[in-house]
Amino acid sequence: MEARSRTERSTGTDSGQPEPVCPDFHAAVELIGKRWAGAILWTLSPGPLFFAEIAQAVPGLSDRLLSRRLRELEEVGLVERSVHKGTPPRVSYELTAMGMELEPAIRELGAWAKRWNLS
Amino acid sequence: MEARSRTERSTGTDSGQPEPVCPDFHAAVELIGKRWAGAILWTLSPGPLFFAEIAQAVPGLSDRLLSRRLRELEEVGLVERSVHKGTPPRVSYELTAMGMELEPAIRELGAWAKRWNLS
Repeated sequence: MEARSRTERSTGTDSGQPEPVCPDFHAAVELIGKRWAGAILWTLSPGPLFFAEIAQAVPGLSDRLLSRRLRELEEVGLVERSVHKGTPPRVSYELTAMGMELEPAIRELGAWAKRWNLS
Repeated sequence: MEARSRTERSTGTDSGQPEPVCPDFHAAVELIGKRWAGAILWTLSPGPLFFAEIAQAVPGLSDRLLSRRLRELEEVGLVERSVHKGTPPRVSYELTAMGMELEPAIRELGAWAKRWNLS
């Protein structure tokens, strides 16, 4: 089979060169693709959860790594952490506006994964 | 701020437990989230490319790692490899039907990344 020429399915560039990967997209996929990050975001997409609930919904993920990922997701602005008074205090996590806007991408990827029976 | 109860944004389960992460989704995000895999798929989405063209479109990725990722993407059925006669023979890569069907997810993620200026 012959490779089709670039012009047959144009990328919108007229230099004949392949379009360089979008740096924003690359940053996004590297962020969400970090081991377990996607699963955590998926779990939080219906609403806030306590730490133990997230741990339960993502089998195979250690508490230590879950803490680290949640902190990273908080640092990039995808997740918000809330401390609830009590003894002991409980900590919940929810998606920020930025995190919630990931929903269409998560949904599309989930639909694709289901269609192709990925697991 | 109080955590909303699970029922306020129901996940469709009536057990009151958080919905376990979808194994297909998890497998998909771990696959596409592998370092550079998303960028390679993005680059191939407008059409077939020769190895050197992919390398050029994804700056910072070594030829060795690009080879490895392409082989992995081929093994899972996302990418198809074609050898073209010549001296030396040239090798091109293109998305399979399964790979092409990722396009909506890639597009959504790209739009989100652009909106939030992720890079």
